[in-house]
Amino acid sequence: MIDPRVASGLRDLLPSVMIPRERMLASFRRTFASFGYVPVETPHIERMEVLTGKGAGSDEVLRQIFEVTNTGGTRGELALRFDLTVPLARFVARHVNDLGTPFKRYAIGSVFRGERPAKGRFREFVQCDFDTVGTEGVVADAETAQVIHDALDAAGVPEFTITLNNRKVLNGLLDTLGIADKTGPVLRALDKLAKIGREKVLGELRRGESGEAEGESSGRSALLTEDQARQVLDFVEQGRGGPEVLDWVEQRLGAHPRAAEGIANLRTILALLDAAGVRRHRLAIDLGLARGLDYYTGVVFETTVPGWERFGSIASGGRYDNLASLFTERRLPGVGASIGLDRLLALMEEAGWLEGTSTTVPILVANFPGVDPAIPIRLAGRLRASGVGAEVFPEPLQIGKQMGYGSSRGHKLAVIVGPDERARQVFNLRDLATREERRGIAWDDLESAVKNALDQIEGT
Amino acid sequence: MIDPRVASGLRDLLPSVMIPRERMLASFRRTFASFGYVPVETPHIERMEVLTGKGAGSDEVLRQIFEVTNTGGTRGELALRFDLTVPLARFVARHVNDLGTPFKRYAIGSVFRGERPAKGRFREFVQCDFDTVGTEGVVADAETAQVIHDALDAAGVPEFTITLNNRKVLNGLLDTLGIADKTGPVLRALDKLAKIGREKVLGELRRGESGEAEGESSGRSALLTEDQARQVLDFVEQGRGGPEVLDWVEQRLGAHPRAAEGIANLRTILALLDAAGVRRHRLAIDLGLARGLDYYTGVVFETTVPGWERFGSIASGGRYDNLASLFTERRLPGVGASIGLDRLLALMEEAGWLEGTSTTVPILVANFPGVDPAIPIRLAGRLRASGVGAEVFPEPLQIGKQMGYGSSRGHKLAVIVGPDERARQVFNLRDLATREERRGIAWDDLESAVKNALDQIEGT
Repeated sequence: MIDPRVASGLRDLLPSVMIPRERMLASFRRTFASFGYVPVETPHIERMEVLTGKGAGSDEVLRQIFEVTNTGGTRGELALRFDLTVPLARFVARHVNDLGTPFKRYAIGSVFRGERPAKGRFREFVQCDFDTVGTEGVVADAETAQVIHDALDAAGVPEFTITLNNRKVLNGLLDTLGIADKTGPVLRALDKLAKIGREKVLGELRRGESGEAEGESSGRSALLTEDQARQVLDFVEQGRGGPEVLDWVEQRLGAHPRAAEGIANLRTILALLDAAGVRRHRLAIDLGLARGLDYYTGVVFETTVPGWERFGSIASGGRYDNLASLFTERRLPGVGASIGLDRLLALMEEAGWLEGTSTTVPILVANFPGVDPAIPIRLAGRLRASGVGAEVFPEPLQIGKQMGYGSSRGHKLAVIVGPDERARQVFNLRDLATREERRGIAWDDLESAVKNALDQIEGT
Repeated sequence: MIDPRVASGLRDLLPSVMIPRERMLASFRRTFASFGYVPVETPHIERMEVLTGKGAGSDEVLRQIFEVTNTGGTRGELALRFDLTVPLARFVARHVNDLGTPFKRYAIGSVFRGERPAKGRFREFVQCDFDTVGTEGVVADAETAQVIHDALDAAGVPEFTITLNNRKVLNGLLDTLGIADKTGPVLRALDKLAKIGREKVLGELRRGESGEAEGESSGRSALLTEDQARQVLDFVEQGRGGPEVLDWVEQRLGAHPRAAEGIANLRTILALLDAAGVRRHRLAIDLGLARGLDYYTGVVFETTVPGWERFGSIASGGRYDNLASLFTERRLPGVGASIGLDRLLALMEEAGWLEGTSTTVPILVANFPGVDPAIPIRLAGRLRASGVGAEVFPEPLQIGKQMGYGSSRGHKLAVIVGPDERARQVFNLRDLATREERRGIAWDDLESAVKNALDQIEGT
């Protein structure tokens, strides 16, 4: 016998997880599509050169790459993708002349990283990305936040906050303080604020990074003066809140051209989101939000669920100046975001926001011993044709076993036709939770009786 | 610059292909779910041992396997799945005690085979599988054909034929002819009938396989006598047609117990499919249909599109005695089928049954230079809320360019608000195909005007 386990860091997804997951993916697809984002798909396997091309991935990501070799093939030529952004860049560079711009695409698919297995971290997980490429229009910036909002809303996430910033504002601050050349380490320190607290970040801003981040600490001692460090931290801590933060920062940095650009961009985005019907309490400004060091150049987004911040951001993204510089001379600015499906589902499960079920249909039609199975098949077909999912039990087992199958999986109702009901052309309708049974309903009334009973169960 | 091509045998899927593909997948998921099949997902990466376990794959499949190694990992331990059946067997063996039986699952996902690249053959392609495991009930046999039928019907395939056989009938024939020990090579020869014709198959049935199939010809000369070969071929050729074929074979083989079982199974399936509303002209019997040598033990299915038989079967499957004997002592009989998504789409494209479009929305809302973009954003939001997909052009470019974008992608209508319309709170509605424009419609009438115009376009 071969052990039926999966490899370390990988997992099987059981029906109770997959059913809400598929529902959520279908909802995301509908939302993306309703805004005119078109689906594209790229292979799971890419040429190694595409994935490792200078700057395409950090060293950390490259260490985690899964190599792929077919029998007789040469090692080192192929690998599994580790995100959907590098494949998007390659795809757009290859096809932009046919596709034209602006090009709005969504992509949903597995990505692979050989991370050390840990609770909640898997070596294969799904990303849901959408991007608008080939435009600098602020309408696309606002729409990106709007799509995050509408997608989460449609997927049944009851509360969430989309936090916005524009990288130009923070860059403007560092420039006015005369420390623009220290942007990298300053942002790295600020990124840890929520995790390690003000005092430790203050220490890092003064000293430069401690040795803990391997190989990154060289030459970074005595980063900022005490005064500079306090000014940066005060700015970031005051620069959080609602739209009034933009008035405050306008007074502080409005004279700096790049910062002013960033502030104006955020103002327009808020106005457009207002027009789009996004409620204000779902939006926040955080002028310290950076989201990585190099990639984003304009607006950036992060999304958290109040009370569940420890799950981190469930939808993040931002604007970039040039998507595909590794693959084409053509400059391709754009904006996009990614929804972390698995993280969001883990959060919703823990919050109790997912309906626990192991079936995709509300109705089980019994296969009664001694009754021609053509009858349950016909009744189930009528229910499906009326839009109600229905499953026929495949064998004429004892009825108790069939009912046990239904109630353990979460079917709501069973339609039962025994020999007596068969003769009278009627059926019994059993509530699988309460075990109450309404008996002797005419076959003709099947659809209406089942829908009424389902409505009643929903209503209770 | 890095060349943005994909590796040999792989491909990018562009919006014009992906849009009908996503629509079809959504339709398949709905159909599978409406019958109570639940979604499950297994990793793309499996342990090598699971994939190569004795008998799990043919030598041909193993030669095509893609090995996976992460940095620092050992070679030969992991590989990409080459189908969804081996992972299903592993999954069920691992989880059957929690899941219970019968267990109905569907799975849609990419599989990988290092085949020599050729037109229409790709190294990554999608399979859509559904199976009912842990039951021998004939209801599950009939339902498998019913799901093929309903899925293709719902996906818009206008005509198709599901061909059925039961392996026991053919086995019964070979047994009565005293050649049961030659089942393998006989079936292999019969499988080629459509391709190489009666005379060549007759030759092979007499001589055994010619040397052309590498490494499989040893010891198979003088397979059948002239008389046996003719009887087998006559049987297979007469055993094709409608339900009347079952009467004919009943007379011929009804006394053979296994053959009689197979005939009764096919009769019941036809009766149940009739109850399910499957029209008779969509079903056929072919007593020569075998579908591979070892795996299937009862009913087998194949599906072709009349006039497009050269695409081969677009949905195939059958009943097996024991799914997971490599992984568990527990005997798990079942029945299932697989729809070949990519093959079906290629066929439908060539037949002209796919609507050519590169957009997911019918409406483009113009972003008029000098008009606050909050207005198009608000109008597009209202359309989406009413169920009509709408896209706002992201930049206030010249209107001619925006209209060109819409008509080249297949948007049907453009909603345009210039400064004058803005002042009067009206919009113009342009048909992007005919360039006709209805002018001065009140904002209040947006949803009804757009829906009426779309209905008219649909109607023409």
